Amino acid sequence: MQNTHFRHRSPIHLSHCTLAESFDFLGDRWSLLILRSALFGLRRFEDFHGELGIPRTVLAARLKRLVSAGLMVRRDYKAAGSRPRPEYLLTEMGEALRLPFLAMRQWSDKWVGAGRTPPMTLMRKSDGAAIRVAFIDETGRIVPGDDLTARFETWAPDAKEGAGG
Amino acid sequence: MQNTHFRHRSPIHLSHCTLAESFDFLGDRWSLLILRSALFGLRRFEDFHGELGIPRTVLAARLKRLVSAGLMVRRDYKAAGSRPRPEYLLTEMGEALRLPFLAMRQWSDKWVGAGRTPPMTLMRKSDGAAIRVAFIDETGRIVPGDDLTARFETWAPDAKEGAGG
Repeated sequence: MQNTHFRHRSPIHLSHCTLAESFDFLGDRWSLLILRSALFGLRRFEDFHGELGIPRTVLAARLKRLVSAGLMVRRDYKAAGSRPRPEYLLTEMGEALRLPFLAMRQWSDKWVGAGRTPPMTLMRKSDGAAIRVAFIDETGRIVPGDDLTARFETWAPDAKEGAGG
Repeated sequence: MQNTHFRHRSPIHLSHCTLAESFDFLGDRWSLLILRSALFGLRRFEDFHGELGIPRTVLAARLKRLVSAGLMVRRDYKAAGSRPRPEYLLTEMGEALRLPFLAMRQWSDKWVGAGRTPPMTLMRKSDGAAIRVAFIDETGRIVPGDDLTARFETWAPDAKEGAGG
C-alpha cells in the first residue's frame, strides 16, 4: 500500500461514498473539535464555548447539524436556581466515533507531535496494557498495511485493487 | 466507554493536543476529500479537479497546505507534447492516514450507509480474508471499547479516566 496505484478516478464514485457523505457533516474544524471535546465528556453548550473559544452562533449551528446527523441528542439540564440550559450528549453513533478519532490521534501523535510526549496513552482498563488501533483479520491477527487490498461494488469503474481511503 | 464521564474541560488542553493540531490542516471538507482521492491513487491536479468539482483556486490552496503540512509532495510530470503539469504524491506521513481514514470509512458504512451495501470491502491481499480496524493490545488481542481507559500527561487537569477522542 505504500505506493498507491496511480488512478485518474477513485474506484468509488463520490455519490456512492459513505466516507465522503460523512465529511458533509464532519468535514469542518469546529465540528471535529466539538466531537473531540464530547468524546472527552463535555456536554454543555457553555463548556464547549469555554473550551473551544468558538463563537456562540457558530457553536449553535454546528451542534444543531451534529444533532440532525444523529451524532448527538439535545436535552435540557437545570442547575439550582437557574433556568434550563441545553446539553448535548453523544448518541451510540457519536460514541462510535471514538475508534476513528483515536486512530487519528495515534497518527497525530506519531506524525504531527513527532518527538513530543503524546498527551495521552491508551490502555486496557482491566490491566493497564498498552492499546493501539490496527488492521486485524477475523481471528484478531494484525494485518500489515502492505498486505491490504479491497473489493469494490460493481458500479465502481475498477473491480479490484488498492485499499483507498 | 458508552457513557462518557461528564467533564467541564477536556483532560488535554487544546494547545497540547496533537489531534486538534491535525484538524488545523485536515479539518475541512475539501482537504479530507482530496486526501480520500489521493489514498485511492489520484495524483494530478486535473484529476482532483475533475473528480471533486472543487474550484481550481481552492484546490490549489488546499494542495499547497497539504504539501506544507508534509502530507504530500509536489512534482511535475510531462505528457507527450504538452507542458509540464503538477502532480501531488502522498508522503509516508500522508500514506499513514490510510488507517484513520479506513476507520472512518468503517464507521461511515455502519452508521451513515446503514442498510446499504458498503461500497468497499477491505481484505488481506494474500488470502482475501476480511479485515477491519479495531483496538488491540500488544499481543494482537482485540480490546472491546468498554475496556478502554487512558493516562494523561501531568500538565492535564485530570490524571486518569476516559479515553477521549
